[in-house]
Amino acid sequence: MAEIITFGEIMLRLKPEGYLRFFQNDRMEATFGGGEANVAVSLSNFGVDTAFVSKLPPHEIGAAAIRSLNSFGVDTGSIVRGGDRVGIYYLETGASQRPSKVIYDRAGSSIAQAVSGDFDWPAIFDGAKWFHFTGITPALSENTAVLVKEACREAKKRDMTISCDLNFRKKLWSSQEAQRIMEPLMDYVDICIANEEDAEKIFGIQAEDSDVNGGKLNHEGYCSVASQLIERFGFKYAAITLRTSLSANDNRWAAMISDGSQCFFSKEYEIHIVDRVGGGDSFAAGLIYGLYKNMSLKDALEFAAAASCLKHSVEGDFNRVSVEEVNALAAGDGSGRVQR
Amino acid sequence: MAEIITFGEIMLRLKPEGYLRFFQNDRMEATFGGGEANVAVSLSNFGVDTAFVSKLPPHEIGAAAIRSLNSFGVDTGSIVRGGDRVGIYYLETGASQRPSKVIYDRAGSSIAQAVSGDFDWPAIFDGAKWFHFTGITPALSENTAVLVKEACREAKKRDMTISCDLNFRKKLWSSQEAQRIMEPLMDYVDICIANEEDAEKIFGIQAEDSDVNGGKLNHEGYCSVASQLIERFGFKYAAITLRTSLSANDNRWAAMISDGSQCFFSKEYEIHIVDRVGGGDSFAAGLIYGLYKNMSLKDALEFAAAASCLKHSVEGDFNRVSVEEVNALAAGDGSGRVQR
Amino acid sequence: MAEIITFGEIMLRLKPEGYLRFFQNDRMEATFGGGEANVAVSLSNFGVDTAFVSKLPPHEIGAAAIRSLNSFGVDTGSIVRGGDRVGIYYLETGASQRPSKVIYDRAGSSIAQAVSGDFDWPAIFDGAKWFHFTGITPALSENTAVLVKEACREAKKRDMTISCDLNFRKKLWSSQEAQRIMEPLMDYVDICIANEEDAEKIFGIQAEDSDVNGGKLNHEGYCSVASQLIERFGFKYAAITLRTSLSANDNRWAAMISDGSQCFFSKEYEIHIVDRVGGGDSFAAGLIYGLYKNMSLKDALEFAAAASCLKHSVEGDFNRVSVEEVNALAAGDGSGRVQR
Amino acid sequence: MAEIITFGEIMLRLKPEGYLRFFQNDRMEATFGGGEANVAVSLSNFGVDTAFVSKLPPHEIGAAAIRSLNSFGVDTGSIVRGGDRVGIYYLETGASQRPSKVIYDRAGSSIAQAVSGDFDWPAIFDGAKWFHFTGITPALSENTAVLVKEACREAKKRDMTISCDLNFRKKLWSSQEAQRIMEPLMDYVDICIANEEDAEKIFGIQAEDSDVNGGKLNHEGYCSVASQLIERFGFKYAAITLRTSLSANDNRWAAMISDGSQCFFSKEYEIHIVDRVGGGDSFAAGLIYGLYKNMSLKDALEFAAAASCLKHSVEGDFNRVSVEEVNALAAGDGSGRVQR
Amino acid sequence: MAEIITFGEIMLRLKPEGYLRFFQNDRMEATFGGGEANVAVSLSNFGVDTAFVSKLPPHEIGAAAIRSLNSFGVDTGSIVRGGDRVGIYYLETGASQRPSKVIYDRAGSSIAQAVSGDFDWPAIFDGAKWFHFTGITPALSENTAVLVKEACREAKKRDMTISCDLNFRKKLWSSQEAQRIMEPLMDYVDICIANEEDAEKIFGIQAEDSDVNGGKLNHEGYCSVASQLIERFGFKYAAITLRTSLSANDNRWAAMISDGSQCFFSKEYEIHIVDRVGGGDSFAAGLIYGLYKNMSLKDALEFAAAASCLKHSVEGDFNRVSVEEVNALAAGDGSGRVQR
Amino acid sequence: MAEIITFGEIMLRLKPEGYLRFFQNDRMEATFGGGEANVAVSLSNFGVDTAFVSKLPPHEIGAAAIRSLNSFGVDTGSIVRGGDRVGIYYLETGASQRPSKVIYDRAGSSIAQAVSGDFDWPAIFDGAKWFHFTGITPALSENTAVLVKEACREAKKRDMTISCDLNFRKKLWSSQEAQRIMEPLMDYVDICIANEEDAEKIFGIQAEDSDVNGGKLNHEGYCSVASQLIERFGFKYAAITLRTSLSANDNRWAAMISDGSQCFFSKEYEIHIVDRVGGGDSFAAGLIYGLYKNMSLKDALEFAAAASCLKHSVEGDFNRVSVEEVNALAAGDGSGRVQR
Repeated sequence: MAEIITFGEIMLRLKPEGYLRFFQNDRMEATFGGGEANVAVSLSNFGVDTAFVSKLPPHEIGAAAIRSLNSFGVDTGSIVRGGDRVGIYYLETGASQRPSKVIYDRAGSSIAQAVSGDFDWPAIFDGAKWFHFTGITPALSENTAVLVKEACREAKKRDMTISCDLNFRKKLWSSQEAQRIMEPLMDYVDICIANEEDAEKIFGIQAEDSDVNGGKLNHEGYCSVASQLIERFGFKYAAITLRTSLSANDNRWAAMISDGSQCFFSKEYEIHIVDRVGGGDSFAAGLIYGLYKNMSLKDALEFAAAASCLKHSVEGDFNRVSVEEVNALAAGDGSGRVQR
Repeated sequence: MAEIITFGEIMLRLKPEGYLRFFQNDRMEATFGGGEANVAVSLSNFGVDTAFVSKLPPHEIGAAAIRSLNSFGVDTGSIVRGGDRVGIYYLETGASQRPSKVIYDRAGSSIAQAVSGDFDWPAIFDGAKWFHFTGITPALSENTAVLVKEACREAKKRDMTISCDLNFRKKLWSSQEAQRIMEPLMDYVDICIANEEDAEKIFGIQAEDSDVNGGKLNHEGYCSVASQLIERFGFKYAAITLRTSLSANDNRWAAMISDGSQCFFSKEYEIHIVDRVGGGDSFAAGLIYGLYKNMSLKDALEFAAAASCLKHSVEGDFNRVSVEEVNALAAGDGSGRVQR
Repeated sequence: MAEIITFGEIMLRLKPEGYLRFFQNDRMEATFGGGEANVAVSLSNFGVDTAFVSKLPPHEIGAAAIRSLNSFGVDTGSIVRGGDRVGIYYLETGASQRPSKVIYDRAGSSIAQAVSGDFDWPAIFDGAKWFHFTGITPALSENTAVLVKEACREAKKRDMTISCDLNFRKKLWSSQEAQRIMEPLMDYVDICIANEEDAEKIFGIQAEDSDVNGGKLNHEGYCSVASQLIERFGFKYAAITLRTSLSANDNRWAAMISDGSQCFFSKEYEIHIVDRVGGGDSFAAGLIYGLYKNMSLKDALEFAAAASCLKHSVEGDFNRVSVEEVNALAAGDGSGRVQR
Repeated sequence: MAEIITFGEIMLRLKPEGYLRFFQNDRMEATFGGGEANVAVSLSNFGVDTAFVSKLPPHEIGAAAIRSLNSFGVDTGSIVRGGDRVGIYYLETGASQRPSKVIYDRAGSSIAQAVSGDFDWPAIFDGAKWFHFTGITPALSENTAVLVKEACREAKKRDMTISCDLNFRKKLWSSQEAQRIMEPLMDYVDICIANEEDAEKIFGIQAEDSDVNGGKLNHEGYCSVASQLIERFGFKYAAITLRTSLSANDNRWAAMISDGSQCFFSKEYEIHIVDRVGGGDSFAAGLIYGLYKNMSLKDALEFAAAASCLKHSVEGDFNRVSVEEVNALAAGDGSGRVQR
Repeated sequence: MAEIITFGEIMLRLKPEGYLRFFQNDRMEATFGGGEANVAVSLSNFGVDTAFVSKLPPHEIGAAAIRSLNSFGVDTGSIVRGGDRVGIYYLETGASQRPSKVIYDRAGSSIAQAVSGDFDWPAIFDGAKWFHFTGITPALSENTAVLVKEACREAKKRDMTISCDLNFRKKLWSSQEAQRIMEPLMDYVDICIANEEDAEKIFGIQAEDSDVNGGKLNHEGYCSVASQLIERFGFKYAAITLRTSLSANDNRWAAMISDGSQCFFSKEYEIHIVDRVGGGDSFAAGLIYGLYKNMSLKDALEFAAAASCLKHSVEGDFNRVSVEEVNALAAGDGSGRVQR
Repeated sequence: MAEIITFGEIMLRLKPEGYLRFFQNDRMEATFGGGEANVAVSLSNFGVDTAFVSKLPPHEIGAAAIRSLNSFGVDTGSIVRGGDRVGIYYLETGASQRPSKVIYDRAGSSIAQAVSGDFDWPAIFDGAKWFHFTGITPALSENTAVLVKEACREAKKRDMTISCDLNFRKKLWSSQEAQRIMEPLMDYVDICIANEEDAEKIFGIQAEDSDVNGGKLNHEGYCSVASQLIERFGFKYAAITLRTSLSANDNRWAAMISDGSQCFFSKEYEIHIVDRVGGGDSFAAGLIYGLYKNMSLKDALEFAAAASCLKHSVEGDFNRVSVEEVNALAAGDGSGRVQR
């Protein structure tokens, strides 16, 4: 029986080797990932019993996605088999001034075509304490939006904590659609997580004096964003990640959290990027872990920031780090000296 | 201006390395292929100006498919850019008693969603002499069935030769649907190409005393199949490939052709398989080449059989062989001695 | 709770790519395998809840071995973490007249140094129906011989079925030592599995008119070997695999089983080898599956023979095949035709 | 019919993977490249019909070089087949204080042995507007120097624009020889392109206060270099790239252009290098594109600088970027944020 | 001080991975090889102190060739550094009916341009017992023909045994040229080695009733060829390898030797080919080893045949096998059973 | 006969590709390395006849370790074959804040189990001038500590120079054990080499005001450390490397040397790390080379610092650089400009 449940899509991720452009040669790294699956893997690596719930086709590609989760000990017993395809995203890793690129090919995936009734929420949530979803899942289709609502309702009934990473994806829906669907879901959410742009793109709540593409973030301005989110939706906490993109290779990375009255900022890390996809998910997982383990708000934030800092040094969507590694960094050892 | 025009779908082909099963490791060979594209590449390698007509999305994955055709000199100028996705097929190469596996993920591809009006057939056919399609294209969607008909009508108007490889795909349609759509298209076809099963699966015309899965083919019985096809549809020629599958590694491979009165058989080759996908397409291309170059029926058949024999030794969908190499084999040098 | 329990060592397997000799280049395929782990993976792939019990070091190499088992859904919850190292075997794949080579580097592994008390057998066997071990585990050290005995005693107490694959390894012990340790263990065993040489090497029971290295097997002679085994140790069944090695690339493969009165032979397969390591383990797993699912003796034998035939076409120690695939081959479809 | 014609050598480029030293393992990346071919590919990627003219052997290695150009849509119809070999260059990518290394093995290549009469310039230039060559081509052999002159004469006759990238290569000729051959060719040239050292090495025109190896460039001093070039040879424009090499991984990159009266400087980019070979060629192509499309001098310069900045992030000689990507960077988005 | 001296060219060997055609992807296996170097490596692997003498450029590619020989313990101390390039050969591995292809790019290599005086033969031969060369070395250039003669003269003076593998290469010279140069060299030779075609191509001595390309060899006819060679040139022994090419994957392989009066035939091996390049060289090395170690003529022949049989199972030019492995096969264990 | 002798362990080094975490995929880079072997390879690359002395098992893994040394011309003639295993270390390369990790699996290696009498020191040292060992060798086992003492005694008797790199490894022994064994060995040592931590860990001699993990080094403080070492043990020179770890990707690197009266500091390099394992060994080799070639103390130090700076840009344990490359950097060319 899993303690934490995440629900969403896991996709096949196709990436050329190293810094090659799409199809520059005839090999692709073929791994799996997706916002909620990434959170589940992180939590499982932290030693928490976590289930990932989704729908995947009965063929070998669906089976491979499940094997990839199983290997980390994620509970995949509630994944429904059916539908036709595994969604795909193509990823090209940028370098220097050349940005990374993502091309989605996820329409028609098994989960996007899942319907009410596919998931037995009471059974899935039996014994669970926490439900996590992101803004991607309700954006997949009208059906998945309904499914998320059903899940939230059941989770709330059981007094589970509900966290949501806003995760706005402009290729999936417009700001208007996002607001229409997400606003009512926020009623169920206890902990809201966002990046520098999500609150603005979905709810029109903007940080002053920040220019995300111009590489300028006014950290203090995000206290106000968090406060407004809490005020408007009654969250217990709102946390925001703060990425300053200097180049495709170098980012600054920090985060903040607010409980409505107080606002905490994490350390800011200078990161040499190996793979930044999944960075936000690893933050969400770190924060969930910290709060689930009853760390102080500040400690949970630092744990989350350190976990997600480390994610940037790991290839693939999944954050392959342990609690010990995160704690070592949060405690200040970022020198990267060899550990023999 | 291309002499020969083929029309259909080009897909991304994702294959694990060597004999690995799906996702046994995290690499995929990512190349492109598809029945009609394979024919175009073969013909281009034989030195004939050939165009491949299709619809592909405007993004980088579509561009990569086009680059793969360009590299062989295939004319891609009539490929329309639009729609959302490149169709995909996953391929696992079998060995010994373990069969190869193909999983299609082609629904919703740009070409499947192409509509009447996307293609300016008179312009495309300007100066061309030959039109080739396969049974896959009309099977993709109701739209593509219409598009094939439009193309055939225009080609016929211009007195072009039309060839069709029946290529029945049970994952795309039922025998009933296939017959309903294919039967009227046969009116336009001059040269019909099929494998051991197509005529039976689509038109119910069966070879006596053959058991394809049991590895037993009665070659003579196929004379009757070809005759019946010619009689029923008025083809000029009907050609059939004859594969005896001993194991996933070893096949016997031959072919026959009939003009309604006479029936010719090619040599039979004992093949150690490197990659058998695209074997039928390479036969079609060889036959088109032979007939287009006015070889005798027997010579064209032997050219086609030798070309497709060689294909089985080449990785990927495309048959990377030259006229000289095909002629050398057709002339009898199959010893595989090193050429220094 | 697992239905079937296997106990033994899982090793890191280091193999040069393809047919390269050791260190011919600077890459190694690094996977995991070992007799009892291979059986567990096979059974898990057949859909049976199976646990693998062992001891592995607490560091990342031990964790990776566990991840490899998790990915197939093998229950790894009873694996003890401790000791210093993961055993290793180096494998070089032979070709034609050049034999494959195995170099073991397994001394001092965590499981070889495990001690009585490391495993809580009553808890491990809770709810289980079947215990499987091989002759390798007691050969690892005096300790592991004791551990196997403890496990057998507990299993017998619970009326579980016990199967043993004799698996003689001359690098681990002499025939004398093997007989000394194995003889008393046989008292617990219900089903004994062996290859063409094991019975002779351990118990001195020999098939007449067979010359294993000379590539000559007298199949009938093995009926007598099985009968003698049953008579001497009171097994319910004794099964023997029959490999005729024509070259490193081509083997004939069959098996027999006896219940003491009747002797059944499976079909004999002509195999083009991809990877023959783990062939015997896949036979054991197939036989356990068949008998556990109450197939007839003949059907279980054919299932096991087909499963292990397919293993030879799969890279790595693990047999990555499904019940459906095994049944298809056992039912006679060995033509290797592409499955689209 | 191509609008822009480039003439020169395309070589096989052999590079160890990543940062490996020569033959540190037994794999080589085997791609193609060469100054003028690189310019042709860039222009073709920008959507301009461009032909590359050269001579290549009739065997498969020559054919592969052509396929690599075809894939980008470069017109290869005027490439003559003959001679014996494709020139080769071995490349080792440096890191930190270890410089990249190039070893040339290009003597005796087909193009170096081409003779007057191999190329039908009037036919090649039919309908073309622009001819581009570099200082490498006349340096290959006495024959190629004659061929360049013939091409220039024919191009001038047709009022085509002629651009030349000086591209001094000390392994091919001495400064004295270079000056002797290049000086008369300059009469035909409209637009001269150079790096920080070319003008000095070939024509003895030096920038004051610059120490190229010492990592110190006096940008202003290059205005004078450009002016002197224009004055001496009557160029319409002279453009110079300005590389400050901080380490093998980090460079600053900028460029300037002069029309004899005015001197413009581009933005300077801080670059994390993926592959800097072909950087100058990508600048030349960008400048040709800008001027050919009638951008202002300043805009053409910024386009060229941005195009070549991006080249440093792309593996291989060829600049695989689109006009849109170049414009985005020139417009100021160098943050490298992921594009979803 | 080396006991056996070989003299010739070592080339860079560029081969696409597996069965890929030239430049089907962008990777090449980059190793080294060449007739006489291959013999030196074989002998060194057999434990004999062997030197390889050649000329190689001073740059890193030359150094890499030397490192590849050093790794096997071949004495490279007499290799002269100078000249410009390492010769290259491109190799494509055939499959089934598609033959392997070799494209040479060796003109202008350092050794081809070596001159009399580059090698201090008395010093090189100091303490040596055996000199081996092949027909390739004198074919490289007029200079190397002179160098071979000088070496033979010095070796003869010292009473060393001289062996020559005729190794006719039609790309290097015509039969007429070969005969003109080789005939006088034969005076120095004690042991002549040839394949099925060499004697005919160079000296016009033909085996009756054999059709090499047609896959038909009359083994007995080669006794007469060997006798004629011995009679004409006074060799002590003449040995001929007998390859029957069934396909690019399957060959039969045997050899014979004659002392002028008696004619011995080796066992014939059925070989599944991994890499047949260097097969003849490995036979020569095996024969030299056997005779150098004073085996009987028949035993030396069987040793040589077994050694070269094994070579066909090893990737690359070099025969990476030990005396123990060769003896095991010669003694009859060709079953390819796994050696644990 | 080698001039310089090093004695120790060479291990198999298993590293995932690039920045992958352990077993993130199924490939490992499999190379060899170890402190004293690394020094031997460096010196051999610098052109000095150097022998590496050790014990390795007689099987193919041991042979491969020897081949890897042979390829650089290291004299391996004194390596004893025996024992059971080659020690292994697993290496994971860190990035940004994630540190590199080393897991040792070296217990029970052939050298750790070597005994007095395995090595004939008088024969090994015949004609040699210098003996080098590190603190790793005596830490392997009680036996190796004795062997090092025997070697030192024999070397001293012959008036050879003896250098020792302290190289403290906490996984092999405690500070107490280290001091107990190392202290008496210091009597033989002429030149002592250490990193920032060794002197403190072994002898309790500490630099003031330095915090190694905190990334803060007080360079001046190490003068005192060196002086104390010299005073206590009577070394001729003591040299210390000074690494400031900014992140796993970026280090500052310098070194100092003292003769007891004077203290010299090298340039400090800003390094973008490719592979920092073996950095200290490359410094030791550089220093040995400089002193052996009678450079001034300052020049030898700069040579050593430049050599080890370059090592950080080279994959693998071995420093694949030449004297020319080191001199170029020491002379100031660290711009990393391409060398054509």
